[in-house]
Amino acid sequence: MITTPDNLPPEEIERRSFAIIRKELGKLTFPPDMLPVVTRVIHTTADFDYAHTLAFSDNAVAHGLAVLGEGRAIVTDTQMAAAGINKKACSHIGCSVYCLIADPGVAEAAKHGNCTRSRAAVDAAAERWPDGVYAVGNAPTALIRICELVDAGTLRPGLVVGAPVGFVNVVESKELLLAAGVPHIVARGRKGGSTVAAAIINALLYMIARPA
Amino acid sequence: MITTPDNLPPEEIERRSFAIIRKELGKLTFPPDMLPVVTRVIHTTADFDYAHTLAFSDNAVAHGLAVLGEGRAIVTDTQMAAAGINKKACSHIGCSVYCLIADPGVAEAAKHGNCTRSRAAVDAAAERWPDGVYAVGNAPTALIRICELVDAGTLRPGLVVGAPVGFVNVVESKELLLAAGVPHIVARGRKGGSTVAAAIINALLYMIARPA
Repeated sequence: MITTPDNLPPEEIERRSFAIIRKELGKLTFPPDMLPVVTRVIHTTADFDYAHTLAFSDNAVAHGLAVLGEGRAIVTDTQMAAAGINKKACSHIGCSVYCLIADPGVAEAAKHGNCTRSRAAVDAAAERWPDGVYAVGNAPTALIRICELVDAGTLRPGLVVGAPVGFVNVVESKELLLAAGVPHIVARGRKGGSTVAAAIINALLYMIARPA
Repeated sequence: MITTPDNLPPEEIERRSFAIIRKELGKLTFPPDMLPVVTRVIHTTADFDYAHTLAFSDNAVAHGLAVLGEGRAIVTDTQMAAAGINKKACSHIGCSVYCLIADPGVAEAAKHGNCTRSRAAVDAAAERWPDGVYAVGNAPTALIRICELVDAGTLRPGLVVGAPVGFVNVVESKELLLAAGVPHIVARGRKGGSTVAAAIINALLYMIARPA
């Protein structure tokens, strides 16, 4: 039975949701810069596992806020993650979101290179935005390629959000990122997804500005 | 450490993932029509809770396959869910995907009606596609409105996928759908999301045809 009015404005629904999440987090505490990220990911998934799996490199949030504040490009591995990032907040801050997975040149490069389109899309993005913010919500092959290019010195991302989901090379790709020596926010383990990657980016954007 | 080759083709990654999922489902068994839906949702989320929370009305999969096979419109509540549905499979079968949330008319109607845009978008969609397939991955207000219109007799959806996520009115909106007397596939409880809604639709589409 619906006991809460169903015409609450979205910001009130979010406020009540965040209050429930904070209450259910109970004694689990987080540094003040990480808390909005953890809370928004749980808000997006209704999954409290993320309170235990989200991992932040030193000052990851500060790094993220700084590079987003500079208007760096945000690059995602999926159209879904791109669709989930708040465009109004991006444009207010001066960032743009890009996903090259459907580019004809990427399909061509994947075919010639005998690799996944996700991997080829990272190569194409790295050329255009070598200092971008990279958010991976689906493809471990994208995250592995990001780590290779970081290692080779051709990609110097402002932040990498590592949240691919699944069963093959997913956990391993995240462990690579944890050791890659770049600012990162990672959803360790098998879980993640485009909604999680977008939620992490949105949490950072909203810490800078949240236009109505 | 990456021990599996990271240039496996996507279909091989999916095959291996599905094998892992079936193995980990262990003694949990599902009717053959539901299994591809359950497996694909777990594949999308890496969350085995869905093996326990997915609920199907009688012959929901058969209903879904029939109406999708007729080329009925697929209506989603979010751009993310729309982005996650396989357009190649849709176009092969003759379906199109619609999300009206960003329509200027919907924003106007929400403002005048003092309701969420998600709810106003259902009203607009119901006029255009009264027999469509409705997939809700985010907004309980959308799902509540669908149930109201079904009750009023103005919406006769071919199938409703109920997978909103969150903490306010989410569980309640799904219980409404379970009692609404329309063919449905529901992710009970708080969990769900645009990826889950899209995965359920994709599972059905792939049971009809999966173009390369």
